[in-house]
Amino acid sequence: MQSKTIEKILQDVRDGSVDVANALEKLKHLPFEDLGCATVDHHRTLRQGFPEVIFGQGKSIPQMRTIIQALLDKGGNVLATRVNRAKGAKLMESFPQAVYHADARALTIEQHPVERRGRGKVLVVCAGTSDIPVAAEAVLTAELMGNEVEKVYDVGVAGLHRLLARRGTLSEAAVIIVVAGMEGALPSVVGGLVDKPVIAVPTSVGYGASFGGVAALLGMLNSCAAGVTVVNIDNGFGAAYAASLMNRVHG
Amino acid sequence: MQSKTIEKILQDVRDGSVDVANALEKLKHLPFEDLGCATVDHHRTLRQGFPEVIFGQGKSIPQMRTIIQALLDKGGNVLATRVNRAKGAKLMESFPQAVYHADARALTIEQHPVERRGRGKVLVVCAGTSDIPVAAEAVLTAELMGNEVEKVYDVGVAGLHRLLARRGTLSEAAVIIVVAGMEGALPSVVGGLVDKPVIAVPTSVGYGASFGGVAALLGMLNSCAAGVTVVNIDNGFGAAYAASLMNRVHG
Amino acid sequence: MQSKTIEKILQDVRDGSVDVANALEKLKHLPFEDLGCATVDHHRTLRQGFPEVIFGQGKSIPQMRTIIQALLDKGGNVLATRVNRAKGAKLMESFPQAVYHADARALTIEQHPVERRGRGKVLVVCAGTSDIPVAAEAVLTAELMGNEVEKVYDVGVAGLHRLLARRGTLSEAAVIIVVAGMEGALPSVVGGLVDKPVIAVPTSVGYGASFGGVAALLGMLNSCAAGVTVVNIDNGFGAAYAASLMNRVHG
Amino acid sequence: MQSKTIEKILQDVRDGSVDVANALEKLKHLPFEDLGCATVDHHRTLRQGFPEVIFGQGKSIPQMRTIIQALLDKGGNVLATRVNRAKGAKLMESFPQAVYHADARALTIEQHPVERRGRGKVLVVCAGTSDIPVAAEAVLTAELMGNEVEKVYDVGVAGLHRLLARRGTLSEAAVIIVVAGMEGALPSVVGGLVDKPVIAVPTSVGYGASFGGVAALLGMLNSCAAGVTVVNIDNGFGAAYAASLMNRVHG
Amino acid sequence: MQSKTIEKILQDVRDGSVDVANALEKLKHLPFEDLGCATVDHHRTLRQGFPEVIFGQGKSIPQMRTIIQALLDKGGNVLATRVNRAKGAKLMESFPQAVYHADARALTIEQHPVERRGRGKVLVVCAGTSDIPVAAEAVLTAELMGNEVEKVYDVGVAGLHRLLARRGTLSEAAVIIVVAGMEGALPSVVGGLVDKPVIAVPTSVGYGASFGGVAALLGMLNSCAAGVTVVNIDNGFGAAYAASLMNRVHG
Amino acid sequence: MQSKTIEKILQDVRDGSVDVANALEKLKHLPFEDLGCATVDHHRTLRQGFPEVIFGQGKSIPQMRTIIQALLDKGGNVLATRVNRAKGAKLMESFPQAVYHADARALTIEQHPVERRGRGKVLVVCAGTSDIPVAAEAVLTAELMGNEVEKVYDVGVAGLHRLLARRGTLSEAAVIIVVAGMEGALPSVVGGLVDKPVIAVPTSVGYGASFGGVAALLGMLNSCAAGVTVVNIDNGFGAAYAASLMNRVHG
Amino acid sequence: MQSKTIEKILQDVRDGSVDVANALEKLKHLPFEDLGCATVDHHRTLRQGFPEVIFGQGKSIPQMRTIIQALLDKGGNVLATRVNRAKGAKLMESFPQAVYHADARALTIEQHPVERRGRGKVLVVCAGTSDIPVAAEAVLTAELMGNEVEKVYDVGVAGLHRLLARRGTLSEAAVIIVVAGMEGALPSVVGGLVDKPVIAVPTSVGYGASFGGVAALLGMLNSCAAGVTVVNIDNGFGAAYAASLMNRVHG
Amino acid sequence: MQSKTIEKILQDVRDGSVDVANALEKLKHLPFEDLGCATVDHHRTLRQGFPEVIFGQGKSIPQMRTIIQALLDKGGNVLATRVNRAKGAKLMESFPQAVYHADARALTIEQHPVERRGRGKVLVVCAGTSDIPVAAEAVLTAELMGNEVEKVYDVGVAGLHRLLARRGTLSEAAVIIVVAGMEGALPSVVGGLVDKPVIAVPTSVGYGASFGGVAALLGMLNSCAAGVTVVNIDNGFGAAYAASLMNRVHG
Repeated sequence: MQSKTIEKILQDVRDGSVDVANALEKLKHLPFEDLGCATVDHHRTLRQGFPEVIFGQGKSIPQMRTIIQALLDKGGNVLATRVNRAKGAKLMESFPQAVYHADARALTIEQHPVERRGRGKVLVVCAGTSDIPVAAEAVLTAELMGNEVEKVYDVGVAGLHRLLARRGTLSEAAVIIVVAGMEGALPSVVGGLVDKPVIAVPTSVGYGASFGGVAALLGMLNSCAAGVTVVNIDNGFGAAYAASLMNRVHG
Repeated sequence: MQSKTIEKILQDVRDGSVDVANALEKLKHLPFEDLGCATVDHHRTLRQGFPEVIFGQGKSIPQMRTIIQALLDKGGNVLATRVNRAKGAKLMESFPQAVYHADARALTIEQHPVERRGRGKVLVVCAGTSDIPVAAEAVLTAELMGNEVEKVYDVGVAGLHRLLARRGTLSEAAVIIVVAGMEGALPSVVGGLVDKPVIAVPTSVGYGASFGGVAALLGMLNSCAAGVTVVNIDNGFGAAYAASLMNRVHG
Repeated sequence: MQSKTIEKILQDVRDGSVDVANALEKLKHLPFEDLGCATVDHHRTLRQGFPEVIFGQGKSIPQMRTIIQALLDKGGNVLATRVNRAKGAKLMESFPQAVYHADARALTIEQHPVERRGRGKVLVVCAGTSDIPVAAEAVLTAELMGNEVEKVYDVGVAGLHRLLARRGTLSEAAVIIVVAGMEGALPSVVGGLVDKPVIAVPTSVGYGASFGGVAALLGMLNSCAAGVTVVNIDNGFGAAYAASLMNRVHG
Repeated sequence: MQSKTIEKILQDVRDGSVDVANALEKLKHLPFEDLGCATVDHHRTLRQGFPEVIFGQGKSIPQMRTIIQALLDKGGNVLATRVNRAKGAKLMESFPQAVYHADARALTIEQHPVERRGRGKVLVVCAGTSDIPVAAEAVLTAELMGNEVEKVYDVGVAGLHRLLARRGTLSEAAVIIVVAGMEGALPSVVGGLVDKPVIAVPTSVGYGASFGGVAALLGMLNSCAAGVTVVNIDNGFGAAYAASLMNRVHG
Repeated sequence: MQSKTIEKILQDVRDGSVDVANALEKLKHLPFEDLGCATVDHHRTLRQGFPEVIFGQGKSIPQMRTIIQALLDKGGNVLATRVNRAKGAKLMESFPQAVYHADARALTIEQHPVERRGRGKVLVVCAGTSDIPVAAEAVLTAELMGNEVEKVYDVGVAGLHRLLARRGTLSEAAVIIVVAGMEGALPSVVGGLVDKPVIAVPTSVGYGASFGGVAALLGMLNSCAAGVTVVNIDNGFGAAYAASLMNRVHG
Repeated sequence: MQSKTIEKILQDVRDGSVDVANALEKLKHLPFEDLGCATVDHHRTLRQGFPEVIFGQGKSIPQMRTIIQALLDKGGNVLATRVNRAKGAKLMESFPQAVYHADARALTIEQHPVERRGRGKVLVVCAGTSDIPVAAEAVLTAELMGNEVEKVYDVGVAGLHRLLARRGTLSEAAVIIVVAGMEGALPSVVGGLVDKPVIAVPTSVGYGASFGGVAALLGMLNSCAAGVTVVNIDNGFGAAYAASLMNRVHG
Repeated sequence: MQSKTIEKILQDVRDGSVDVANALEKLKHLPFEDLGCATVDHHRTLRQGFPEVIFGQGKSIPQMRTIIQALLDKGGNVLATRVNRAKGAKLMESFPQAVYHADARALTIEQHPVERRGRGKVLVVCAGTSDIPVAAEAVLTAELMGNEVEKVYDVGVAGLHRLLARRGTLSEAAVIIVVAGMEGALPSVVGGLVDKPVIAVPTSVGYGASFGGVAALLGMLNSCAAGVTVVNIDNGFGAAYAASLMNRVHG
Repeated sequence: MQSKTIEKILQDVRDGSVDVANALEKLKHLPFEDLGCATVDHHRTLRQGFPEVIFGQGKSIPQMRTIIQALLDKGGNVLATRVNRAKGAKLMESFPQAVYHADARALTIEQHPVERRGRGKVLVVCAGTSDIPVAAEAVLTAELMGNEVEKVYDVGVAGLHRLLARRGTLSEAAVIIVVAGMEGALPSVVGGLVDKPVIAVPTSVGYGASFGGVAALLGMLNSCAAGVTVVNIDNGFGAAYAASLMNRVHG
């Protein structure tokens, strides 16, 4: 395709039928996409050892099937998030090698073992039992992205001693993901206890003036603890992806 | 005044100049306020030992002067909240016996000593130094309403050890007011440590997505700690008033 | 458990096998949870005579079963809120001793009689018939927490005489919970009639610009009656919990 | 222009060169704006006996002067709302016959006596002293529009007896305007006491979660009392204008 | 009942067994509701010729049955709003004399003919076909409240000629209800064409940034046409109730 | 009725009983609606070559049938948007000539070939696969309105090279519609690459803090690229309609 | 710089020291920015005949001076928007050739005559006198961008006849910009009268529930008239820029 | 202090004057802060090489002076953010060694050279010139925290080539901070180009529907590029603090 065009210019230069100045001019006006700069992208996922990811919510089962098959053909591991139990069951009929993770509402297919890429540990901390689906999505994602993952669940700020009892675990992590709904105060407390990057994930858990996670989101954005950054409501996947990148810094 | 009217009816009945049926009819059509039900209100403040309170914001100095003088004439103590320094100075020219409390942005005139009415201690806890004006308004109000007041300042959730170090003080209070801006997480943490009523006061301290105290307000309304109730943003006075009522329950 | 470790250090000091400086250093680095500070929490619920509480919304029936059984094993009474009729029926199959309260959407299991702990009466006032589920949750919770409870239902502000006719009842309560949807004005009116703590509960009753209870919530936060504090939308449980704490102040 | 076209058709009809049926058809398809339909509007204000009104906020003094002079030239009375004291003083230099109403932040010029047009009384009820500017704007507007106006001020819902004491006055009004900030509950209470149209005016009085009058606005829109309609925050003028129209229904 | 108590006091006074001072004291402490001030309310509905109204949304069929029967027993007409088709069918089984109005999602039972009470005509104008359920609720309510009602449907502002063609109808009405969703501009246009009270009803019709009727509500509150007042989103009943009161002013 | 009046005037003119000047005056004051000005509208749709459009959401199948039949009778093409699959199937039973477009959730009936009216190309660009239904609605609408339409799908801003690779296509379009959910950044990027009108369509795709498309909407309204205008969330139809008008400017 | 690298590769090919395949590979990995693709942008503004534009709000006078001088040096015309009177006066001291447009709050410097580029007329319609600054910014921008511009001011929807009287002007425009605050209904009405692209500009004019232009913005986004697109609040410049692009479509 | 108490207990045990059981009991009831767990905090700042930080907004000059002096006494470097020019000048009178950074609105005092602690480079990318104060605060903070910092300014998404031209710089950074106002799209574009943690900082730059940075904030939270985390509006300091932590992961 476009390589042909450039090849032709180069051949003309070699053959002397076009001089260097003219060739330079022609090259400058080629649409840059022809230079293959997009290919960086094509290889990025595999190079990183990251799985291919599908956001399952709002996609039909046939759509899911088509995309999963395409990704499998590329040879990598596959992670489909936001897959409810019924959709998961249907997909496992088509892909018997798939594993459905009920707690994380996700489906994975591992075509090759996950390579350990992140040097340290990613810790996932979670405030209440209702926040677990989001936390589990983060755990699963981080594992598939090549991190050692540890979890500390059910340590809400109204019962501080449970969190304080896990200070050792907190201090050993390289990056900490904190998942919390309701008032979203847990990341502030954790952020005050450690000197590690803390990624806060608000959840839509709550009712009334929680406004589907907005109260938790605002709480986290206004955290009085420095070092806390925030992702979208219920975005366990995004937190784990960011944590994976952080865990590779100088890794 | 109105008692006279009723007395007259009764006298007429006694004297036989009006029969019972007619008197009954007349009584039914008297405006009920004439029966003294409004008078409960007139005496409520003094009976409780509460000061007379003026919300100073948006009132001109002449308006303030008139109202203060009227309240003084009734004989009680006076508390004017939301009085800035300039307004306070002007008012002290008119009322030399007044005291201006710069930290609480309030002015008080004590015509008689505050009687101790609340049986226990009201504790005012405060997250950051910027929250102090609201906390100080609560402290001053609670004192003027006859409570012993203690304060624990600058114990934000990002430095838990400072709060934990004051657990003894927390456990000795009858009612706790917790003042916090930003993410408003402190009441949840305090509420998890004690078995006392906790009144949460969000402050407008913060910037950006704090939305003038809304983030803190939502955090407090969604507190995972039971026993926490909430008042309006920056409403130190209201919190202290409610705390005073609570401190008199069975007191 | 951890006490063993400390005991060992102390024995070593006693026996002279460890000197004081070294023992001091060891003690400093023990995780403080080992010192029993967490145990306060473990006993809190039973000590208070409060039931164990489960927030049923969003929990599956198997999850509910597991949690209820665990709580029963601890020996206390159990209260599960936000349990719809279908879920309630299923749970009563597993726990025949359970009682389902349709009006309060709650399920209770009393393993021992509720001990009367609150000294005064908790009064639950409610504006409209649609607010009754929230009010009933408050009534049930307050009763299980050891309070005498009275209720005054259907006394909206658009028909003041009904409320005014119950002034006697209002004045006899130690703490008043006021449940209201729509414009949420009832707590202001009640707060103006009494000198008791008033806990306002906005409900999600209404449509259009009620925004699922936000209009009522804002109305209550802006109440012109001092002494009113607010809990989250539909949070009948939280109001009753706070009322129970208030009813024990100096009780 | 367009008149020429119609005149030509009429001349053709007169001259017999076009018959009536054809002329009718042609007239029907003429653009209507050419028929002078706008003139209805030009006379509306004077015909109603309403003053000419200027919204003063954001207008410069020269702009105000020009508009006022233009309105005076038309011969009617003039009402300028949202005129602060400084602007009012400047304008009175130019128009010595003007009257500045400090409480209503308005300026009026009466070139002829206001004719009484509304048959009944318009009552303006107001919750707190801070709401008075809005109430006063409503009073002044209603008077200038030819209504008898009565006012009942400072009757907030937290002190019901003051309102109940004025039930006679409420029942004598034809239309009632209720002005209230904070939680905006007063219109509901008034609406429950009378069988008259109640126009609710939220004010921007309050702080924190009053959100500049939004809490009051929502409270009024969600009023549990039927018969209450609402205007924009602080819109005393609009309420009085609507009340004037209502006071002329069958008047 | 209570009258007996007062009668007894008066008899005692007459008989001399109680003196005037004591009788006065006793009367003062009687709950004022005993003086009959509440009775105004009991008779209000029937006196006005208004039907008894039930807000059907969120009420179960048994609840509806109980309330309807109770209202029927009082002898008046009954209007139940927000009754969907299924609920309506069930209720008509219990009350064969009931009529279900599918367009208005309402059910009525007329025990006696509606008496014409409003002197003029109530006009209901409606922007789009999707707004018709709300408009129909307004029409039905206004009719049952004794008004002559006319309707002008499907006259949105994007096709002005349809509205302009009905100017005669607009000018004949005593009160106009304008129902509109989306941008809610119709009341402004109607308000600019007439000198009658205009009650604007925003509807939840629309999608995206209509936010369930908020866009229309804000548009109406900010109407540039004076004389427009607003009710809650989808509140056709409330608009008609208010219109009925307006149609009786001086009627 | 009104025609009679005009006819009478014309007859008078013809008969000489009224002169032209007086007749002109009389005609000017007739209400313009009588002149049939609404007829302009009746012909607009057909004159433009635009299809008749029905917004299907919230309309019942019988309602849809009636409207479609009425439009067919007028002779034009028909486009029904927001028609789900089930409703589409039902309607195709009634109208066998109809075509259901599953991707666009729309149904069309072409009674005559679409005439090419727009001179240039309308390009529809779309960020993610979940945005396709909205994009497809825009494509279908633009085609039915007589435009040549091209599409560039799945070119989100997180993979810029895909968009940059299509710069040639962007530069050939006359008008560009950009459909995007989530952060809604694509229109800014496209707007920075071209000198054509860009119509941005936010979609409700996303979760959490996307607030049903509000995040995308705000992003588009705040675009740093000049030349971008915005329509309502998910309004593919509206974007295509506006694009059609733009494609005819000087066309 | 980078050209050198490419030139070197080409020379190597010419000289035979690098073969074509290797050269192709090297070229593919050159950063594409080296190919001059950025230069497209540098010439865009001048090529279009558009002025250079500075958003003046929030920029200091020294900053403004530096930027203006830099733009002047490039040879084009300059438009600075959001320049208040004081800033404008200061800048005119530095740039005596500048013209300050008080109504549009803008400053222009024309170094060469504006070339007429847009084929048709851009019409700017404006609802109220307070909207004029935004409208004037649009007028000035559109003129400087080479369009013939006409304006129709003060034609709010509450006085329809004024707008209807200008239908001729509306129908002659190629593109229409409609500027309106408060309820923002004017674009819907205009959009219903014409078959031209309508760009709606909400203004921050209003108070209370206008929320700084949000009410108008929502009204416009929900317009029932197809063909209306919207820009940010007060963005007269953006509307004119978009209108200029539209006026060149097929122009 | 507290160590003394424990030491005493241990000595008593050693000396046999207290037995192990009693000593154990005593230790359990010591406030745990006495065990040194709080001391971690006291040394954290210095140990990390982080400066002491003061949030200057809302603090008076005397308050600032006191805090700065206290921090200086602890021996570390000092960073005061949100210090306007006037406040900065006053503080430099008191602290001649201070440096005021006008672009970052910050003041620093370096008592000892900043030690390089972060292993890689922190890159600060910024969309527009108005975003520079926030970006400069991030740059200054990151430098003082021991990072090598590079900046890429003025690379908004509407002119992609400027950003693409800096791809080399992007790929060399360890962590990237992206500062943007308006639609906040830049972090998505940057996040799509790199495999590094991206911290997005929304700024309050914009007007109208930017809502003081909310549009940018929502855009960033909904970023379609994985790996992006977000801090509060205008929080350049917080972004740099988090970046510093990330730059030390495995560093």
